[in-house]
Amino acid sequence: MTAETPANTSGVPSREGQPRRRGRSGGRAGNARRVATGVIEQMPWRLPENTDRPTEPLDEGGVQAIHAGAMRILEEVGIEFLNDEALALFRDAGCTVSGTNVRMGRDWVMEMVGKAPSSFTLTPRNPDRTLTVGGRTILFGNVSSPPNYWDAETGKVPGTRSQCRDLLKLTQYFNCIHFAGGYPVEPVDIHASVRHLDVLHDKLMLTDKVVHAYSLGPERVEDVVEMVKIAGGLSEEAFQATPRMYTNINSTSPLKHDIPMIDGCLRLIRRGQAVFVTPFTLAGAMAPVTMAGAVAQSIAEALSAIALFQWVRPGCPCVIGTFTSNVDMKSGAPAFGTPEYMRATQMTGQMARFYGLPMRASGSCAANVPDGQATWETSNALWSAVQSGTNIVYHAAGWLEGGLIASPAKFVMDCEIIQQIQRYFEPGIVATGPEDVAVEAVAAVGPNGHFFGTPHTQERYTTAFYQPFLSDLRNYEAWDLAGGTWTAARAHEIWKKIVNEFEPPAMDVAIAEQLSDFVARRKSEGGAPTDF
Amino acid sequence: MTAETPANTSGVPSREGQPRRRGRSGGRAGNARRVATGVIEQMPWRLPENTDRPTEPLDEGGVQAIHAGAMRILEEVGIEFLNDEALALFRDAGCTVSGTNVRMGRDWVMEMVGKAPSSFTLTPRNPDRTLTVGGRTILFGNVSSPPNYWDAETGKVPGTRSQCRDLLKLTQYFNCIHFAGGYPVEPVDIHASVRHLDVLHDKLMLTDKVVHAYSLGPERVEDVVEMVKIAGGLSEEAFQATPRMYTNINSTSPLKHDIPMIDGCLRLIRRGQAVFVTPFTLAGAMAPVTMAGAVAQSIAEALSAIALFQWVRPGCPCVIGTFTSNVDMKSGAPAFGTPEYMRATQMTGQMARFYGLPMRASGSCAANVPDGQATWETSNALWSAVQSGTNIVYHAAGWLEGGLIASPAKFVMDCEIIQQIQRYFEPGIVATGPEDVAVEAVAAVGPNGHFFGTPHTQERYTTAFYQPFLSDLRNYEAWDLAGGTWTAARAHEIWKKIVNEFEPPAMDVAIAEQLSDFVARRKSEGGAPTDF
Repeated sequence: MTAETPANTSGVPSREGQPRRRGRSGGRAGNARRVATGVIEQMPWRLPENTDRPTEPLDEGGVQAIHAGAMRILEEVGIEFLNDEALALFRDAGCTVSGTNVRMGRDWVMEMVGKAPSSFTLTPRNPDRTLTVGGRTILFGNVSSPPNYWDAETGKVPGTRSQCRDLLKLTQYFNCIHFAGGYPVEPVDIHASVRHLDVLHDKLMLTDKVVHAYSLGPERVEDVVEMVKIAGGLSEEAFQATPRMYTNINSTSPLKHDIPMIDGCLRLIRRGQAVFVTPFTLAGAMAPVTMAGAVAQSIAEALSAIALFQWVRPGCPCVIGTFTSNVDMKSGAPAFGTPEYMRATQMTGQMARFYGLPMRASGSCAANVPDGQATWETSNALWSAVQSGTNIVYHAAGWLEGGLIASPAKFVMDCEIIQQIQRYFEPGIVATGPEDVAVEAVAAVGPNGHFFGTPHTQERYTTAFYQPFLSDLRNYEAWDLAGGTWTAARAHEIWKKIVNEFEPPAMDVAIAEQLSDFVARRKSEGGAPTDF
Repeated sequence: MTAETPANTSGVPSREGQPRRRGRSGGRAGNARRVATGVIEQMPWRLPENTDRPTEPLDEGGVQAIHAGAMRILEEVGIEFLNDEALALFRDAGCTVSGTNVRMGRDWVMEMVGKAPSSFTLTPRNPDRTLTVGGRTILFGNVSSPPNYWDAETGKVPGTRSQCRDLLKLTQYFNCIHFAGGYPVEPVDIHASVRHLDVLHDKLMLTDKVVHAYSLGPERVEDVVEMVKIAGGLSEEAFQATPRMYTNINSTSPLKHDIPMIDGCLRLIRRGQAVFVTPFTLAGAMAPVTMAGAVAQSIAEALSAIALFQWVRPGCPCVIGTFTSNVDMKSGAPAFGTPEYMRATQMTGQMARFYGLPMRASGSCAANVPDGQATWETSNALWSAVQSGTNIVYHAAGWLEGGLIASPAKFVMDCEIIQQIQRYFEPGIVATGPEDVAVEAVAAVGPNGHFFGTPHTQERYTTAFYQPFLSDLRNYEAWDLAGGTWTAARAHEIWKKIVNEFEPPAMDVAIAEQLSDFVARRKSEGGAPTDF
């Protein structure tokens, strides 16, 4: 008897197979041997290796067609660079510059792109958190940049520094989150001139993971560089010797790179740091309504900048990003985690491998609250990152409303999915050695026993299966008795506990003082201009 | 400016890219050209073709190791067949029968399995709903057999005929649901002796899709056969000429097939109908704690029955099913949609292709209510069906609490995911012809325009993107003003509307009378025994 055959119609033999839901001694014994640390029992820090062959919707002709389209855009249409320094550099490189329009030949582009490394490292202030970007590694980062915040108590409200700090604590707490991307929520209660100073200060004190600088003007970039150097105790030489941080830029699609984004990238690559170039090509709005067209435009926009950076600093670490999705046909609103989004991500993965570049994608959704829709959209987005062979997953935890809301409960829910993805990659699950195929265990149990108490089970029980921290696997009655709490409400309780019990990572007192002094000094100098 | 860069820090150029969320004329015009039919606008009926290369965690050695393990189980351990007729047949075939234990040589098993077709059709009373089972086709069915029902108004309650009818209406209504599997909820308010008569009557009146018989005693199977013949207006000869229905059996794991399940299969294959054999091998409980072991045992249990059926009726249509998951280490409860479940499904897919058999998997979850957990578990299960090359997805819509609850709101939510999967397969999304790569459209719009109003967009707008019926893509404020309804609550409203406005498919009056007469007669005869 299984859950599949109807109840109340059959006798004893069919009942046997119906699994009981509580009180198996094997389960209890197994659990007792596990050690819970902190609020939840989570998976250890790791750099997961994606073991799956990518899903490749394009055949070789399709890859060539998108490549040819991207090259024609670069050669015939050109990309606008609003940044004068970039225009001069393109001129030096022999590209055709007309006003702000730059056209570049495919041979030059491919030569430049060929100089980019297929893999590189990013080393934060805690070298144990060093990341490898490229190859089969897939890394997950926190939500970045929503102007608003939502939790079950506040509803949707503008972001604050306090919320930003809470989300940074979650970023640090979860081992499945590898880097602290942009501001997890925009703290609009801090003046824009000094916001980068306060948030980077919080970020460097509350986390020891890789951080980034927004390319929003030279002062902000330089300030973050200085703070990263201080936090890492690095000389300029040590800082430049290997990537310690990165910036992520978006083109202003269609076909445009703005002044501060290119400026920030140039500053960073010249000092040995990494850049991610991520066009935001929403099919039907800022890009063609066809996914191949949106991807081709995205590729062209990204490669134009990456080619420039390789011209300036051959071999500098660059990541090609994708943020290609579609609009909702009813409202014109951006949609995320859609079938078209998944395919665009997979196609971009094929193109990234064609160009030999590490790739960035996202965990994203359009839903306004952490409900079923939020979950299927985010799940689709995260799995398409896996399927595409993505190396860096931005916004992997905490994003709602198309990136306009950051949510700590959603952050916790997404980490449950991300942990499952990381567990999914463990080769042990699909091992097929004699002890895995386990004919002897089957023979020993025979047709009338069960496997709970067998040595083969007992020896493997504690690590055989993924242990969720948020999924509630009790039966309905036990779950109901315990309050009948739905997932989002459980996640709400968990994030509050994590934040309340949070202990920041260790930091040398002298370095902490240096950081504070730097922030105080730069604030007294007025911070960064807000009129760029 | 995109959702990724921080708000309130930048000026005009960065703002451009921020998508507006409402009032695009393209969106409105596009939508106006779409015709809503019924409660929601849904995708048309289709037999989706899975265009993805399967995800294959096993290398050739891994496939051979699981195969060898399954063969050793069949040769050295044997499978219990409690059915005397089956034992006699195995004896005739030269297998080693000791009491109820049957051991069979791999050569014979492989010879028999080799006779099974890799693809076949199932033709219901409406031939427009004929299914192809096998090849690249992937079909989705309703939840089957939960003894309980849950909706937001009732909470968890024992199933009734009225609820069963509601779920059958959803089964018929949704074009993405291809077959009416088992009872979508067990109507425990009908006596078990006549339950099959009432539910099959309801099923044949309310749906025109493929139906099945539970193998729970000869009378029930024969009654369903008669009713399927009546509903289809079929002679016995026409019935036997091509599969019109099927049964799905579960082995009583470990290593056992019970009396009525084998009896039902033998009855049906002898009359040309299809059988699905789906062991329920919960790793760590009814199967080894290792996934390869659980899969090997599942394969052995399934092949033992399929070999028997091929011996009796060479070439009869058989499907190999998988229901391999793991237990929760905390409670011993079954878990579904886990990383281990996904991998087991993918591994079984490799084995099904190795044996040349169509495959069945499931959409399943452990969650008790249609929340985030339910969604990620179901989403994982459904996508693993896609990744494994599954042909038939049981329980694809409406399942909760490990199959102990059927839920109409969950049904609607799952159909949203299934529609997205079906859309995902459409080759148009990844087409790369010149009009798809769309360099001319990119050139025409240039760096300062947008694509909403262009001819390239307008010509494709109505069909360019998947149109969800349940996802709410409005911004937070518009969603909030409209009630701020979460996904499960929206799904609740939708299922009630569908059920209230439901119109059953056409049926000939004379056939309807024959069906009613048959049910009345069989009831007057006492129905089926309940003491088998």
